[in-house]
Amino acid sequence: MAAVTTSSSHADGDDATRTDLLDSTMAALGQRAKAASRVLAGASSDAKDHALRTAADALVARTEEILAANAEDVATAERDGVSPTVIDRLRLTSARVESMAAGLRQVAGLADPVGEVLDGWVRPNGLRISRVRVPLGVVAIIYENRPNVTSDAAGLCLKSGNAAFLRGSSGAIRSNTVIAAVLRDAIASTGLPADSVILVEDTSREAAVAFMRQRATVDCLIPRGGPSLIRSILENATVPYVIDGDGNCHVYVDVEADLDMARRIIVNAKMQRPSVCNAAETLLVHRDIAAEFLPGAAAALDGVELIADPRAAAHLPGATAADEAAWSTEFLDLRLAVKVVDGLDDAIDHIATYGSGHSEAIITGSVHTADRFTAEVDAAAVLVNASTRFVDGEEFGFGAEIGISTQKLHARGPMGLRELTCVKFIVRGDGQTRG
Amino acid sequence: MAAVTTSSSHADGDDATRTDLLDSTMAALGQRAKAASRVLAGASSDAKDHALRTAADALVARTEEILAANAEDVATAERDGVSPTVIDRLRLTSARVESMAAGLRQVAGLADPVGEVLDGWVRPNGLRISRVRVPLGVVAIIYENRPNVTSDAAGLCLKSGNAAFLRGSSGAIRSNTVIAAVLRDAIASTGLPADSVILVEDTSREAAVAFMRQRATVDCLIPRGGPSLIRSILENATVPYVIDGDGNCHVYVDVEADLDMARRIIVNAKMQRPSVCNAAETLLVHRDIAAEFLPGAAAALDGVELIADPRAAAHLPGATAADEAAWSTEFLDLRLAVKVVDGLDDAIDHIATYGSGHSEAIITGSVHTADRFTAEVDAAAVLVNASTRFVDGEEFGFGAEIGISTQKLHARGPMGLRELTCVKFIVRGDGQTRG
Repeated sequence: MAAVTTSSSHADGDDATRTDLLDSTMAALGQRAKAASRVLAGASSDAKDHALRTAADALVARTEEILAANAEDVATAERDGVSPTVIDRLRLTSARVESMAAGLRQVAGLADPVGEVLDGWVRPNGLRISRVRVPLGVVAIIYENRPNVTSDAAGLCLKSGNAAFLRGSSGAIRSNTVIAAVLRDAIASTGLPADSVILVEDTSREAAVAFMRQRATVDCLIPRGGPSLIRSILENATVPYVIDGDGNCHVYVDVEADLDMARRIIVNAKMQRPSVCNAAETLLVHRDIAAEFLPGAAAALDGVELIADPRAAAHLPGATAADEAAWSTEFLDLRLAVKVVDGLDDAIDHIATYGSGHSEAIITGSVHTADRFTAEVDAAAVLVNASTRFVDGEEFGFGAEIGISTQKLHARGPMGLRELTCVKFIVRGDGQTRG
Repeated sequence: MAAVTTSSSHADGDDATRTDLLDSTMAALGQRAKAASRVLAGASSDAKDHALRTAADALVARTEEILAANAEDVATAERDGVSPTVIDRLRLTSARVESMAAGLRQVAGLADPVGEVLDGWVRPNGLRISRVRVPLGVVAIIYENRPNVTSDAAGLCLKSGNAAFLRGSSGAIRSNTVIAAVLRDAIASTGLPADSVILVEDTSREAAVAFMRQRATVDCLIPRGGPSLIRSILENATVPYVIDGDGNCHVYVDVEADLDMARRIIVNAKMQRPSVCNAAETLLVHRDIAAEFLPGAAAALDGVELIADPRAAAHLPGATAADEAAWSTEFLDLRLAVKVVDGLDDAIDHIATYGSGHSEAIITGSVHTADRFTAEVDAAAVLVNASTRFVDGEEFGFGAEIGISTQKLHARGPMGLRELTCVKFIVRGDGQTRG
């Protein structure tokens, strides 16, 4: 069984015709996803877990087919002069396919969030109200060149009772198409709908816009990509979405910090994996310990370019001079902005001005200072005496993660299975009418 | 102290200039709301409740001023030939101002949602993680001609620690301006920021669009209005929003229903207050009890125009013939679509096709049928043997309501104080770094 195709290449004629055709093709795919989601919403945990394990086995069994398709994607990327980093993300190996399968088995082993009763109460008139966790329905995911997202996202959606409506990038289309086909075949073989996973094969920009506007069928859109994708969603999407945004994360070293601990934490937060959203981008240091702390910190941050304001630069020979842009840049690299601040208020104000609401850490031994920092800093996660790198679904114990939300509505911070659900009120009476 | 004005009437020159000026004026208002929200986030329940009660007293004390401004709005509306229904919503009286004040006092008496610890756990590495409830920040509300919304929305936002950024309609602008000024004065007199309530006085369409795009400061937008407002938000908004949408609500009378109960419930759901979103719009009747149920129901629905499909019409002499549009129309009036269905599956399919995801009721004595209906119908609220009219913040026991969400993200169903908050992860360690 092939994955689903939205072919619009035969749509010549004017742009409006092409747009209409795209919309109706995309709407038809959405309707199929919606129909599948109604079946999935009622599927037992056993049925979903069996489908996930069957899909895992199928990925491993059909590794050769997957690698052959992936080799074509990689060859195209190399011919097009795509950067080695991007090609590395795109490239699959037997080990990486095994790892995708292991991801599905891990999700099968997690608790099913569907059906949880969040709370319930009885009204004076006898009405019994409960709030229960139910799947969202159709979860749309738009993502870039990592073919493993096809399998990871499909697995999380299936476990949480949602149909996965996927739109990957053109660079990984052959890999994604085969992976989606393998998943669909495997899921269908267990009796759940093949349309539990639908991959949009039209990778044009117009198709992406049509995808963001399927309000009749898409219950939630999660983008996995950079600023231009986010901008496109803000401008074009009519479906509800959860933004997995930037992490311009700060570590503030307070006057009452254990400076050895502070050094270990900033090194970890910056260097352990610089390319990810929960890596630190700015170090804020209290002025009264700057002279004592910064030289040793700089030595420990060996290999990191320091971009310092004048007060920090006084203790950091060789640092680059910071301009205004330094404070708002997510470097995702071995570069770190460093600023000396007058104290807690100054640090909190800096974070309020430049932070992206992702993860913010303070190093301090003072209960009072820690309490104010955690209360006054507005971010998905606020950490005391720990590295920002812990803000992650796995590290939080969620078992798996679909992304990290930097918005406040619906989900904030690491999103696991629970964040792929919503609630429904169930009201039971014995004939009550309103007076 | 006057409420805040965005005057753009002096912006002649080209449209782009006017748009830029509007955006920067609106952004400045948003920044003021954001600054106030930072103070409110740290305000104690006592301080917020004192401000609410002071504001309630001020509304009553300044009733004459409010009524004078309102009389001008009403005179303008009458001169413009606005419908009596709309003028009734617009008109304030001493009793209505008292009722606005009573609303603020009621909100002051509710439990403060801020600071609630939702859950917490310890990771194997010793990190202590908790999830706490915090205010959203700046809540933007765009609404139509009811001046009481100015006070009601401001009160709910203040109690939940949010700044209220309000944009009412031109028809109520004089009333809204005075009410906002009264609230601002009263709040400021208690030591909280006057900018806890900011009313946008530019009621142009362009200002509404600028209002929907203040992503730098607005954390959540809640529209209170009709389909054209919703459409404008879907197309223009870049801020996160919660849609308070239509209610195309169904009552399904099953073959195992107590028919007396079913009759009382459909009469209540349709007739008790036809103009509201949780009123029933379509009655679905199992074919095997249609002949027995429908004539008596029609008699009880005295004064309601019945719009029936052929099988229902057979038992409803004088009914209007239903066309396709009947099933998707929210009448908000003494009109009811009636359809005979083959059974539970047919009823569930009809609701899946035409429902708006608001409130759906079944009347049945069968546990099995009730369980399937509650599991398979996808709506904010699903009711068994009770009127759809109960789906409401007050009736659910929330004490107050900012709206009823028909979307699935963030809030679904009646929204009280809790739905005006979000969560923050607080992570406490003693020097943990990621390996």
